[in-house]
Amino acid sequence: MNWIELPDDHPTPSLVVDAQRVDRNLRRMQDYCDTHRLHLRPHTKTHKSIPMARRQIAHGAQGLTVAKVGEAQQMSAASSDLFIAYPAIGPQRLLRLEKLAKELAGQQGGQLAIGVDSQKAAQGIADAATKAGVPIGIMVDLDVGFHRTGTETTQEAIELCTWVSQQAGLRFRGLMCFPGHILPNASPQSWADYHDAIAGVVDRLRALSIDVPVVSGGSTPTAMESHRNPILNEIRPGTYIYNDWNEVSLGVASIDDCAARVIATVVSVPTKSKFILDAGSKTFSSDRNCVDADSGFGKVVEFPEAKVSRLSEEHGEVIFPENYSGPRPSVGDRLWVIPNHICVCVNLQNTFYLHQDGLLQELAVDARGLLV
Amino acid sequence: MNWIELPDDHPTPSLVVDAQRVDRNLRRMQDYCDTHRLHLRPHTKTHKSIPMARRQIAHGAQGLTVAKVGEAQQMSAASSDLFIAYPAIGPQRLLRLEKLAKELAGQQGGQLAIGVDSQKAAQGIADAATKAGVPIGIMVDLDVGFHRTGTETTQEAIELCTWVSQQAGLRFRGLMCFPGHILPNASPQSWADYHDAIAGVVDRLRALSIDVPVVSGGSTPTAMESHRNPILNEIRPGTYIYNDWNEVSLGVASIDDCAARVIATVVSVPTKSKFILDAGSKTFSSDRNCVDADSGFGKVVEFPEAKVSRLSEEHGEVIFPENYSGPRPSVGDRLWVIPNHICVCVNLQNTFYLHQDGLLQELAVDARGLLV
Repeated sequence: MNWIELPDDHPTPSLVVDAQRVDRNLRRMQDYCDTHRLHLRPHTKTHKSIPMARRQIAHGAQGLTVAKVGEAQQMSAASSDLFIAYPAIGPQRLLRLEKLAKELAGQQGGQLAIGVDSQKAAQGIADAATKAGVPIGIMVDLDVGFHRTGTETTQEAIELCTWVSQQAGLRFRGLMCFPGHILPNASPQSWADYHDAIAGVVDRLRALSIDVPVVSGGSTPTAMESHRNPILNEIRPGTYIYNDWNEVSLGVASIDDCAARVIATVVSVPTKSKFILDAGSKTFSSDRNCVDADSGFGKVVEFPEAKVSRLSEEHGEVIFPENYSGPRPSVGDRLWVIPNHICVCVNLQNTFYLHQDGLLQELAVDARGLLV
Repeated sequence: MNWIELPDDHPTPSLVVDAQRVDRNLRRMQDYCDTHRLHLRPHTKTHKSIPMARRQIAHGAQGLTVAKVGEAQQMSAASSDLFIAYPAIGPQRLLRLEKLAKELAGQQGGQLAIGVDSQKAAQGIADAATKAGVPIGIMVDLDVGFHRTGTETTQEAIELCTWVSQQAGLRFRGLMCFPGHILPNASPQSWADYHDAIAGVVDRLRALSIDVPVVSGGSTPTAMESHRNPILNEIRPGTYIYNDWNEVSLGVASIDDCAARVIATVVSVPTKSKFILDAGSKTFSSDRNCVDADSGFGKVVEFPEAKVSRLSEEHGEVIFPENYSGPRPSVGDRLWVIPNHICVCVNLQNTFYLHQDGLLQELAVDARGLLV
């Protein structure tokens, strides 16, 4: 599929998104989920855009995932079925949560759930639900091996789920996990361990007559292998809408699948062996490649042999290999860069350009930089 | 000096700036510059805030440095003497440059200069100056050893300076460099090399009867050693207004000098050996420590023995050393974090809270996320 032609006066550095590729990425993931009877609840952290969230819903997503209460408030413009995959702690968040729960309760199909791994977090949400006068859903966060958040043992998980199921203001909705440690094409044993970590909790909850309506996993790299853990009935990938150089490096996307790219201008060619782009860590972030940390800060599409070797805040240094004899850019040339990690790149922008049907439209990154 | 007490409902994660420390940092740098007869032209990339830029001018700064034309447009609210330390390339930038040059020319003491390292960049600026009908200043960028941008040889520098000095629309203002390779307490030889790289150009320009009014160096870590290179008559430090964990690690600031800190909430304590903050790479950036890349992503003030070991987008994982036996935080506790690199941290925020005379005021990060 051809990539986008920009007018000469397009500003750089800026993020440009191709709607046709977005739709192809959304369709592919939705088809996978439909085939395997999985609910798709995309994580909007990647795009932070209300129109992009609406596109995901239009393609068949069940609802949306967000990381912050403030993002949930924004994304309620796109769906009334929201999951905050993050414990809402502190008076500012709980006040907003109370307000949002009331708003969603008044809407068709409206529901709100939150992921927690401690009774303290759940207690605050229960209090907010009581004040709101509407129940709030709780998903209990299990650590299935990534060792970030999540209850560490089956016993801890059971105790928290049981406690939640007994609170008047709360509705126990099920279990969530983030299987970020499982890479594409992981061994059957890794998937069996992942399954068993959840099944052990589900079995004991059922023995206690506690229903577990939702078991939610996901994350883009292994999203389309989710059927390998048949206890899952929902996934929450984010990156798949745009893809990035990490996904290409992991082998789960092609360059052609990368729907969001940065256009940058060559501002200096100090020596024959390198050039400098007007995009640095304030455009791409300093996130390293997840497969090979030393492979550079993304990929310059026109010069795939070159390496984005060093970033300053507004400078991207790109070097050619020693034996390189191909073409080289000049000052003023504009080049396309696929960032390592598109989620943090998007979050650095105030706006992005959406290309659709030959038109470019500047849209806000609606939910970036929110405080709660 | 005591740090700030926040009200219970203060949102997290958020950036909080202490005005008293800001003023102390500004005063110290201005005094240094005054003592050594250096002009101070602070780089506003660190704060991107018009009120903070005004504070720098009020303390005696000569003018301001910015990285982008869009930032210059914003910062013209604080000073009419602006230096864009970055080649302005491309039609969008040149159009705005033309407009800005006209505006500043109409103001008391108004002047605009731009750093370039190529004739191509200078030619675009000359054309913009001609269209504006007012001259634009040019500072030629020398590579003095950091090997990012800048002319590589004395001969190249001379040719570019000579060419600039012959253009009707341009005013040759002098030489700029970024001595980022020189660390605090570098050897006399490093400073001699730094001096000689510039002096070689200045001497040949004087022999050609080309006046060099400004020789501009700087950057916070070695700013207060600038007298070791007596050819400099201007410096452009940025970070010194706030300081950060990099500056503390380099030994040029104390924790007490860090005027900008992130307040974060403990959202999970999954095991005894670690806790999770609600601030990750979308709050701090993934910038590693410049002295010890593996020392973590900043410093938790209340738990100096702990290490911010891993960042996800909205999670900051903090681990205790194995033999740690001191106090540990609980879910809901709020902690102060000093980021490794404050410039990129500020740039991730839409707003910051300024603490002054016991009051907290939420201010915009005016110049963040600009496209040109």
